Amino acid sequence: MRVRKRKGAEEHLENNPQYVILNPEEAKGRWREVFGNDNPVHIEVGSGKGAFITGMAAQNPQINYIGIDIQRSVLSYALDKVLASNLPNIKLLLVDGSSLTNYFADGEVDLMYLNFSDPWPKTRHEKRRLTYGSFLATYEQILPAEGEIHFKTDNRGLFEYSLASFSQYGMILKKVWLDLHASDYEGNVMTEYEQKFSRKGQVIYRVEAQFK
Amino acid sequence: MRVRKRKGAEEHLENNPQYVILNPEEAKGRWREVFGNDNPVHIEVGSGKGAFITGMAAQNPQINYIGIDIQRSVLSYALDKVLASNLPNIKLLLVDGSSLTNYFADGEVDLMYLNFSDPWPKTRHEKRRLTYGSFLATYEQILPAEGEIHFKTDNRGLFEYSLASFSQYGMILKKVWLDLHASDYEGNVMTEYEQKFSRKGQVIYRVEAQFK
Repeated sequence: MRVRKRKGAEEHLENNPQYVILNPEEAKGRWREVFGNDNPVHIEVGSGKGAFITGMAAQNPQINYIGIDIQRSVLSYALDKVLASNLPNIKLLLVDGSSLTNYFADGEVDLMYLNFSDPWPKTRHEKRRLTYGSFLATYEQILPAEGEIHFKTDNRGLFEYSLASFSQYGMILKKVWLDLHASDYEGNVMTEYEQKFSRKGQVIYRVEAQFK
Repeated sequence: MRVRKRKGAEEHLENNPQYVILNPEEAKGRWREVFGNDNPVHIEVGSGKGAFITGMAAQNPQINYIGIDIQRSVLSYALDKVLASNLPNIKLLLVDGSSLTNYFADGEVDLMYLNFSDPWPKTRHEKRRLTYGSFLATYEQILPAEGEIHFKTDNRGLFEYSLASFSQYGMILKKVWLDLHASDYEGNVMTEYEQKFSRKGQVIYRVEAQFK
């Protein structure tokens, strides 16, 4: 998600350490302590403006959610939503998807979401796609055995690529949706992108992929 | 493919043994002899009225094609096309997809096509879908190690199911197309269904799945 640089974003994040984890290396292996309970930890890599993570946290109070984004301005908008929601089960993290093993111990993350990730359509940018093999290796490390990635996107090329990438990495596709909003899938929490694109009649793709 | 019963279909098939293999058990392990050369053998299970197999045989004279259907009337229409094409590299087979090991030796088929298979949308009919696990076990036996199934359909439910079924069987998805006709895929030969449905604006899905 690209947004214009937001003035005061840095201060906004720094002024809310109850939600924004400012020294995330120190949280590695201690996330249950950070949340103050033993509930499962689910993360969203590329959490954008936070509609998904906030909606999920409201819907599932027994699960801890961490929204992760690399862009300060984007994360500051997510923080607005988190502050408005006033939920105890959300944290935000300003870090890069490729460096997750610095912030999570092996198997510390119970489930992972990727939503409307940047498609990087050019072949020479393949390595930047969040479903590229080297990213999957990172995710595999922080997830438990048979951990799952739940991925949705409206981008056909990225979804075609990702199905093959998951499969070629050795993951199993547990279930695939080729038009999520026309399906009987229940409890779907929409991202900002999803609301916008589905209004335009774009189909939304979804897959639940599992490490072996 | 459902068609009205065609009068004289049986005689039509029996009168053309140069194309229709009447005692297919006897061809098992001897298909290269049947074709009179050592070219690869590709089969289409559920070949319908034969547009795909005939088009492929015309496009690829160095490959032997076998169209397989269980319905006599349907196969008789395919025979019309094969007779008109006058190609030496096509045979037709009136047998069931679940019994292929009776007609092909282990590894005797080099590549397999499934096109617009009956979707059998009801869950209780799952076992009849040609991408159900027990069918995949049959295909695996007659294909070589790392053999491939190339599958296309316009049916969203069947494609969603099949991607998961291939993956859960242990196959690798080599490449996926979620709108074949909008892609840069070259040399696509359309089936009768495909011509009809793509004219209606329906997307065509395709996957190349490989046994391990």
